[in-house]
Amino acid sequence: MRNVYEVRIAWGDCDPAGIVFYPNYFAWFNAATDALFASVGLPLEQAMARHGIVGWPMVDTRASFRLPSRFGEVLRIESHLQAFQRSSFEVRRRACKADGTLAVEARDIRVWTSSERGTLSGRRIPDEVRELFVLGS
Amino acid sequence: MRNVYEVRIAWGDCDPAGIVFYPNYFAWFNAATDALFASVGLPLEQAMARHGIVGWPMVDTRASFRLPSRFGEVLRIESHLQAFQRSSFEVRRRACKADGTLAVEARDIRVWTSSERGTLSGRRIPDEVRELFVLGS
Amino acid sequence: MRNVYEVRIAWGDCDPAGIVFYPNYFAWFNAATDALFASVGLPLEQAMARHGIVGWPMVDTRASFRLPSRFGEVLRIESHLQAFQRSSFEVRRRACKADGTLAVEARDIRVWTSSERGTLSGRRIPDEVRELFVLGS
Amino acid sequence: MRNVYEVRIAWGDCDPAGIVFYPNYFAWFNAATDALFASVGLPLEQAMARHGIVGWPMVDTRASFRLPSRFGEVLRIESHLQAFQRSSFEVRRRACKADGTLAVEARDIRVWTSSERGTLSGRRIPDEVRELFVLGS
Repeated sequence: MRNVYEVRIAWGDCDPAGIVFYPNYFAWFNAATDALFASVGLPLEQAMARHGIVGWPMVDTRASFRLPSRFGEVLRIESHLQAFQRSSFEVRRRACKADGTLAVEARDIRVWTSSERGTLSGRRIPDEVRELFVLGS
Repeated sequence: MRNVYEVRIAWGDCDPAGIVFYPNYFAWFNAATDALFASVGLPLEQAMARHGIVGWPMVDTRASFRLPSRFGEVLRIESHLQAFQRSSFEVRRRACKADGTLAVEARDIRVWTSSERGTLSGRRIPDEVRELFVLGS
Repeated sequence: MRNVYEVRIAWGDCDPAGIVFYPNYFAWFNAATDALFASVGLPLEQAMARHGIVGWPMVDTRASFRLPSRFGEVLRIESHLQAFQRSSFEVRRRACKADGTLAVEARDIRVWTSSERGTLSGRRIPDEVRELFVLGS
Repeated sequence: MRNVYEVRIAWGDCDPAGIVFYPNYFAWFNAATDALFASVGLPLEQAMARHGIVGWPMVDTRASFRLPSRFGEVLRIESHLQAFQRSSFEVRRRACKADGTLAVEARDIRVWTSSERGTLSGRRIPDEVRELFVLGS
């Protein structure tokens, strides 16, 4: 299952060196994860309503920044669901420039999370969620 | 060499689940790195003016989010310079809550970067910069 | 009632022209409003718990940017509560540089807001809230 | 001259009350201004290269927030160039929801700015820039 999420880099995304301020990549990666789930028919809003979760918070992420990007460039962020564990899942992604060269490579581990009396905790990911990705791949 | 950078979590740092939207941690970690260098007498502005660099862009980062944090909490971000390579350096950090429990653990690799005709490239980190951390430790 | 909220401008707050990307001022002004209420003994968390509101969302704001500010500068944001209406209040503020020169002048109108079945609506501001500012001034 | 810039509201754009954290509107409005100029054939990068400016920084803005917006909504931001002064211009805009209802109304005054020895100052807006909007309207 792959999903492509495109971003046009805005002026305000860049720092005084003229390149993307790297925390902004993570905001796009978060939106790209939401888009990945939406692409298999499970937008976050629906996952919350249907499965009683409060979201899929990040628990571990790693990113390698290979090339800087600048105002006006378009990045094509390709995400795929790499693996499910009991209550977590791993997403891998590559953000590429218009000419296809790799700009950023990353992987995320997120937890299928519910809230009980204000405390967040991981919950088993339902089979019907896992199957969305198997069927779709 | 350790430096502590404190952050009070603002309303706008948090998402609809009521917890810090994780890209914001990276913005604080970036400021914490700048504070680490300032604490040994080399604020980024001065590094730029004196050593002709355009900054120390991130090339690789990893973060583990152990506990969510919420509006109004104060995080104490402790950073230390773990190692220098030829043109890069590694910073490790721990963000702890007021009671000392670990919230986020991270490490960054950044490159001492100059710009020549619009192209960014790594440059050997001067001995006098390395020595700031040795002497200070 | 005046409150001062200080901000040290970070690298990531600035754009490729090297000056603060102006939406960031509004994030600081929001935090400065929260600090103003906290300074009279009513932090937002407590206002939510005690008065059943979900916050004080912005409904109208105006800002004049007199001088650009840059990485490393410290801004002193002075806020005061100018007036209460039935369910809204007006905050005026001035952000000044270290030498006292005015950088940004702004005013906000916010609404004391509750949520009923997912719909946000304004609510009369309790007298005990109004009195915090009268007594404190 | 009207330009439409669409934004899909991301999870991280929203605050713990579940609505867009208002400073984010200004980041979109800034991108919408850049898109407005690009739509008449003058992207900011080209304005910088051709006219020697460093950008069109905001000097005065006002916004009225009529309806809150939430994660997943799409806002259609319509901008038009209202007037040129000697070195400044005014942009008015309306951000509407999918059903056409008005969410935010705003107006900006920006300055055509050059940098001389590190000092920013306004510059006369060239006739050929004014004409782009006249011809295009």
